[in-house]
Amino acid sequence: MKIRVYYEDTDAGGVVYHTNYIKYCERARSELFFERGLSPQVSPTEFFVVKNINCDFLKPALLGDILEVKTELIKRKNSSLILKQEVFRDETLLFSALIVLVYVKDLRPSRIPENIVTILDKG
Amino acid sequence: MKIRVYYEDTDAGGVVYHTNYIKYCERARSELFFERGLSPQVSPTEFFVVKNINCDFLKPALLGDILEVKTELIKRKNSSLILKQEVFRDETLLFSALIVLVYVKDLRPSRIPENIVTILDKG
Amino acid sequence: MKIRVYYEDTDAGGVVYHTNYIKYCERARSELFFERGLSPQVSPTEFFVVKNINCDFLKPALLGDILEVKTELIKRKNSSLILKQEVFRDETLLFSALIVLVYVKDLRPSRIPENIVTILDKG
Amino acid sequence: MKIRVYYEDTDAGGVVYHTNYIKYCERARSELFFERGLSPQVSPTEFFVVKNINCDFLKPALLGDILEVKTELIKRKNSSLILKQEVFRDETLLFSALIVLVYVKDLRPSRIPENIVTILDKG
Repeated sequence: MKIRVYYEDTDAGGVVYHTNYIKYCERARSELFFERGLSPQVSPTEFFVVKNINCDFLKPALLGDILEVKTELIKRKNSSLILKQEVFRDETLLFSALIVLVYVKDLRPSRIPENIVTILDKG
Repeated sequence: MKIRVYYEDTDAGGVVYHTNYIKYCERARSELFFERGLSPQVSPTEFFVVKNINCDFLKPALLGDILEVKTELIKRKNSSLILKQEVFRDETLLFSALIVLVYVKDLRPSRIPENIVTILDKG
Repeated sequence: MKIRVYYEDTDAGGVVYHTNYIKYCERARSELFFERGLSPQVSPTEFFVVKNINCDFLKPALLGDILEVKTELIKRKNSSLILKQEVFRDETLLFSALIVLVYVKDLRPSRIPENIVTILDKG
Repeated sequence: MKIRVYYEDTDAGGVVYHTNYIKYCERARSELFFERGLSPQVSPTEFFVVKNINCDFLKPALLGDILEVKTELIKRKNSSLILKQEVFRDETLLFSALIVLVYVKDLRPSRIPENIVTILDKG
């Protein structure tokens, strides 16, 4: 998952606006679904919600940079997952996050289907 | 309708990213509904869509600026409106747009209810 | 610090896109500077950077909601601060974050000036 | 220039937020520079600014869509250009814009260097 930094991603400090690294992680998670012809919105009533993010901003990205997001499944519970997502520019780690996702169905936490776990585990 | 320019609104050029002036105009239109306790989404199947925008970028806004959006109903047809929306910093005009909105109901152009016209005309 | 939720803040899930709560916190921090006639960019070479965010997404906000951001100084070190920022809709807590900010001068961590601490402590 | 529609691009209406089509056009213009190893910020004091946009919103794009932006040089003057930029999903035209760009150097309109015209003409 490669991401180019455009003007819209930067701010008057000359670097990528901090929340955009978190957007890039969401793009990467969604792309794992899209590239299999699926949607992160598994059904209108069934999808993941972000419950917690703990993230470190290590180095800034700049206009024109090409970034890569790496996604790794760290822990799996019945209705939730912990993913580690990291944003790199070449070999340099810029941003690192642990993200807790809860699978909800009809607005309640629900068992994650096996095939959905597989999608996020292969990332 | 006063709008503060935050970091998120600016880009690496040090000024407000160009599409954000158009966002500010949308905020101002929506606020005309919200401040009356209404929603721009009149019903799940009934709302305005933007059909055309013709806009001039005259001067840049900067981090921390307080901007004002002025909205004027220019022309009214059966199922569409033309609004003039301008973004000022104090007396200085920064951005000016003519915006064509079409009222749709069940995905088809539909007669604009009288009370809805009133909302946008008072702006 | 009151914030209205506009269309731009929401996503196809019908609620506020998750990273936008973090944007609202940044707006609130910047506003503490702006309302005193100051800038969060204290000088071109002197400003805070976000080092870490640990946040919980508790309940979703919706189009048209009016949100309030509360900011509290939790801990102060020589060159860094920990802020607690919470987003409420009326009495309901929607989002809560601990945010570590580092004060940099000429790109290096630097002692936070006393008057700057005061700005963030009063919020 | 292919663009995937992510959650961040959509709004509570379930479709891409209108100003994002204009962002996609900017991405496509910048990418013409980046893919040649150049920057749209030709130098700190030399770059294009958007002067006018006249655009039609024809059909909505949806979460997960892959869009393509086509860019064509329509007219060239001494210090300005008119580009036509169109956003397609497969063969379907969703958005069409005429965009006037002015080349500025030290904040004043300036003759566009020949190699810069070539970049935008090949798009």
